[in-house]
Amino acid sequence: MVGDAIGSKLVALGYKVMMGSRTADNEKAKAWKIRNGDQASFGTFEAAAAFGEILFNCTQGQVSLEALQLAGRENLHGKILVDVANPLDFSKGMPPSLSVCNTDSLGEVIQRQFTDVKVVKALNTMNCQLMVDPGLLSDAGNVFICGNDAEAKEEVTRILKSFGWEGIMDLGDISAARGTEQLLPVWIRLMGTLGTPMFNFSIVKQ
Amino acid sequence: MVGDAIGSKLVALGYKVMMGSRTADNEKAKAWKIRNGDQASFGTFEAAAAFGEILFNCTQGQVSLEALQLAGRENLHGKILVDVANPLDFSKGMPPSLSVCNTDSLGEVIQRQFTDVKVVKALNTMNCQLMVDPGLLSDAGNVFICGNDAEAKEEVTRILKSFGWEGIMDLGDISAARGTEQLLPVWIRLMGTLGTPMFNFSIVKQ
Repeated sequence: MVGDAIGSKLVALGYKVMMGSRTADNEKAKAWKIRNGDQASFGTFEAAAAFGEILFNCTQGQVSLEALQLAGRENLHGKILVDVANPLDFSKGMPPSLSVCNTDSLGEVIQRQFTDVKVVKALNTMNCQLMVDPGLLSDAGNVFICGNDAEAKEEVTRILKSFGWEGIMDLGDISAARGTEQLLPVWIRLMGTLGTPMFNFSIVKQ
Repeated sequence: MVGDAIGSKLVALGYKVMMGSRTADNEKAKAWKIRNGDQASFGTFEAAAAFGEILFNCTQGQVSLEALQLAGRENLHGKILVDVANPLDFSKGMPPSLSVCNTDSLGEVIQRQFTDVKVVKALNTMNCQLMVDPGLLSDAGNVFICGNDAEAKEEVTRILKSFGWEGIMDLGDISAARGTEQLLPVWIRLMGTLGTPMFNFSIVKQ
């Protein structure tokens, strides 16, 4: 769902996008390609990583490292990886817990495992429809980004602006992913209280 | 600081307030009493717990259980305990980590240890000046509460309204404290980014 939403938005903005999956003939990827036309294509994680200049990790957090290994280290080298994933662990029932948190984060784990990739954590604190269409809320709230590479964050900021985002907050290096990933437990509670995933965090200040 | 802020506000609203400490002659508690006049008093945790009809846990999260034990189980029996504390662990350097999180929370630990106390987690997601004066922000944002006892939450809601709060969100039972306590890591990051503790979380929705 996240990859579908972001991939479709990028196609609409004029980018060529390849959707990666475990297999070259993933049915959902094929359906996504048909909906999105000539600028859209699909293939293995490896093919998609080789194709892309900027990569988005839209996998479930529990399998992100495996997906990136399948993508192939040589295909990731030097590229920006926008990490949208959250390390939600559903194996112990609902609500999910986090498989990594507090003194570490999925964003940091990925950055440590792939040291020559420019990991930028972003967009992981909201529903995927809002990620690519903040105008769905009258007050869109904030989107948080963090990462170790300033130029990569500038590039991701440009993409977020093209998605319609204004309240982009840079929280510093990738260790700030501990903070944004730990927003998920209260996000899940809020979804239950509000009865909808169509909400966002906004930081109000003096 | 948190106890000072909340205690002073409660005195200003007409309540009689006793500030508890480890010792009966705590200098800060004495200074607080002098500033707040006849309605204010101070003493041991035990004396304060015996005195209060509604109790506020404004201790540092790492020592909250010890403070509550010193307060005495018999003095807590059946009372509302507004738990404002966060389990911030500064022992491993900055930024602090959480000594309990993810699949448990300080609010839940306190509720399990003191089963006949009505624990309501509240106010732990903002600076103590904002806790008692949400009008300091032009848009005050939200204050989250959770707990197992509906009547206790209603009573705490009345107190929060008397503090000036409008955006009070009830997130359900005390296990929602996992969510609100895990807001602290991003709160600390945000304080660094914004250069001020005078901000709050606001939930924006359709």
